[in-house]
Amino acid sequence: MGERLAFILLESPLELVPDEIRGHPQVRRSARRYGVDVGDLLLDKSLHYNAMAALPRKWKRGRPDIVHITLLNILDSPLAEEGKLEVYIHTVSNRVYRVESRTRIPKHLERFKGLMAQLLKLGRVPPEGEPLIYRVADSLGEFLSSRREGLALLWERGERASPRRVASEALEEGLLLGIGMFPRGDFQRSVLRKASRAYRLYGGRPLKAWTVAARILCAAEEIMGYWGE
Amino acid sequence: MGERLAFILLESPLELVPDEIRGHPQVRRSARRYGVDVGDLLLDKSLHYNAMAALPRKWKRGRPDIVHITLLNILDSPLAEEGKLEVYIHTVSNRVYRVESRTRIPKHLERFKGLMAQLLKLGRVPPEGEPLIYRVADSLGEFLSSRREGLALLWERGERASPRRVASEALEEGLLLGIGMFPRGDFQRSVLRKASRAYRLYGGRPLKAWTVAARILCAAEEIMGYWGE
Repeated sequence: MGERLAFILLESPLELVPDEIRGHPQVRRSARRYGVDVGDLLLDKSLHYNAMAALPRKWKRGRPDIVHITLLNILDSPLAEEGKLEVYIHTVSNRVYRVESRTRIPKHLERFKGLMAQLLKLGRVPPEGEPLIYRVADSLGEFLSSRREGLALLWERGERASPRRVASEALEEGLLLGIGMFPRGDFQRSVLRKASRAYRLYGGRPLKAWTVAARILCAAEEIMGYWGE
Repeated sequence: MGERLAFILLESPLELVPDEIRGHPQVRRSARRYGVDVGDLLLDKSLHYNAMAALPRKWKRGRPDIVHITLLNILDSPLAEEGKLEVYIHTVSNRVYRVESRTRIPKHLERFKGLMAQLLKLGRVPPEGEPLIYRVADSLGEFLSSRREGLALLWERGERASPRRVASEALEEGLLLGIGMFPRGDFQRSVLRKASRAYRLYGGRPLKAWTVAARILCAAEEIMGYWGE
């Protein structure tokens, strides 16, 4: 039995506002509103919907809220508290960051967005002292090649498996559990090719990323004996 | 075995900006920013921190983010999908609202805040057609007196019990499970007095509201047989 559960949030829709739309009035207005430079602004579909109209693959971009809710779920878990968790963020730009499990994620989305903009610019947060979130690889391929254990996706076309089975296989084999952070569409083919296995938890409609994470955590915590009678 | 799991989000820190601070520059600035009337603005500690300095019990107020994350967790569950969930919001102002389990909560906090402001003003959302969230009682006492089954709190001074035990007792006895929505401090005495039981899931530090909800949902879904092997 492995010691830790490892998650990677795949294709996380976190990016600074891209160059080609920095002049758009909606973008400039939101930078003014937040009192930041346009180059320090995180892309947010809810604010930049019109500005994003011409961006390629726009349905998978500008959704920091999904990453936020998922991280809040993962990092508040007893498993994180007990130091039995490894968490990584892989972004749409193919960077990989490690999130220390003692990190206190801001509960308010606007503060989280500020933190993520800083992370993307500097490669780490906080800027000084011991880093809590920091870049560990410049691509998913590079990151995976540094690990012995395989990547298992939570994927709507994966094999049906209960949270308990996923958690116990992940703990036994040290699998890295990959959860897609996009609101719709599918994993990129380059991500799918890297996975050695794929699971689906529920027979109904696809679950949100944070629900998938919470169910696996719950099962792992039971396996690890953190609950009472 | 009961048919449904029932949650009530207790002392939810949802309120419109109170009269006494509507003139504060921080409040007026944020109303301008969002392009809404000050009277339609939801109190948000992250934006109104200075303005809130003089408010009584300010540590339990202005935290729509906690309710948001908890509702997103509850309503994305397989249990909600299968129609086996009842959800209520009790606010700091002692109103009780029912949330239909098919409600799609906005994923973005700013949109959720707009929805909650509308709910507090009109007593229901959407304003027209079949309501999805609507007032059912003008006080917690009135609400509880309309139900046969008891209120069980998730409370750090409750009896230690696993998510599975809490879920199975709640399903068997039709208990209403009350989760506190405040960031710190304790339940009001008037709420504590109304509870017939109290549970604590985890022996370590207190879990966040959304984690408590997710663990109980996970256990209930296993009991109901929604997971595969």
